[in-house]
Amino acid sequence: MPRKKDEALHAARERQILDAAKTCFIAHGFHRTSMRQILNKAGISSGGAYNYFSSKDDIVKALVEAERADLDLLLKHLTENDDPLLGIAQLVYDSIGYYSRDDAVLAAEIYAESCRNAAIDEVIRANTERMSRLLHETMSRGKRTGAITARHSASELTEWVLALIDGYVGRIAASPGLKPRNAARMAKHAVVELLGHAK
Amino acid sequence: MPRKKDEALHAARERQILDAAKTCFIAHGFHRTSMRQILNKAGISSGGAYNYFSSKDDIVKALVEAERADLDLLLKHLTENDDPLLGIAQLVYDSIGYYSRDDAVLAAEIYAESCRNAAIDEVIRANTERMSRLLHETMSRGKRTGAITARHSASELTEWVLALIDGYVGRIAASPGLKPRNAARMAKHAVVELLGHAK
Repeated sequence: MPRKKDEALHAARERQILDAAKTCFIAHGFHRTSMRQILNKAGISSGGAYNYFSSKDDIVKALVEAERADLDLLLKHLTENDDPLLGIAQLVYDSIGYYSRDDAVLAAEIYAESCRNAAIDEVIRANTERMSRLLHETMSRGKRTGAITARHSASELTEWVLALIDGYVGRIAASPGLKPRNAARMAKHAVVELLGHAK
Repeated sequence: MPRKKDEALHAARERQILDAAKTCFIAHGFHRTSMRQILNKAGISSGGAYNYFSSKDDIVKALVEAERADLDLLLKHLTENDDPLLGIAQLVYDSIGYYSRDDAVLAAEIYAESCRNAAIDEVIRANTERMSRLLHETMSRGKRTGAITARHSASELTEWVLALIDGYVGRIAASPGLKPRNAARMAKHAVVELLGHAK
């Protein structure tokens, strides 16, 4: 009984630290944010902090890992939609439309850091590869059933979709005037053209 | 006469500092690189350094401004190709294919920094808007002449192309296994499908 309460408290504290870290990274970037700043923001004494995360890297890894639950929801569009093309289009829409501009700025920051930080790269890569694999399977199924009429290979179609998602999330970060919902709608249109209408 | 020599020397020194800064930013990121590191790398004494650039921000701005000459070359595809669709496809190919992975990592770093640094954002935005404007004009011309048969608006088509370029450059940065030439070829195929074959 007390154990459960401790676990709940521990999880709540972790959540507090991750939220504080997000806010700091968005405002100042990864390298100009110190552990102390994050803990101050989270209202946690620096003495107890290392029970939760031992470094900023660990915090970023936890942030990316926390996206896995969101990814599970996104990937359901691929596994549960009878029409592969509509499933992919919906995945693209949700991957972009649920980002706020702050989320997109954070993604750009983590992305840049991952290019030279192997530990962070590894957790991002795990998520990307999971999405990529399931997209590829869905593309192949769509081509077999005729729902996807594009001539290009399932691999190339998968790359197109991943590049469009990354590109639109980047454009949301760089263009405060671009509403995520509008970006998501445009990306979805592009994907429908690429997979369904292209001949 | 001596003046010209001084100018040439000054320009050469600037070039040295910019090259050194690139190397440092790619290896360590913007915020973990100090002015001192850049000057050491460039072999310039820190006393004379501030004759060239007064801050790291100024160096990044100069790096982005230096891309203008490359941009001029890229945009020639739009102004000098009689076929708007082929011009755009070639622009997309060159925008991506001439990146090395290091260039792409640097672009990701500068991109992330620009989201919260107004001075850097401004110079990037000037380049992007120039490309965007000319792309839009070329799309409109292509739709008028029938070279571009896509149903969507010239604005949306322009956004598609910009997102594809950003997305593929990002994927080059994140995926050491993805050759820039292959990324460029895939992006070009996607653009041809989107603009020419989609109906």
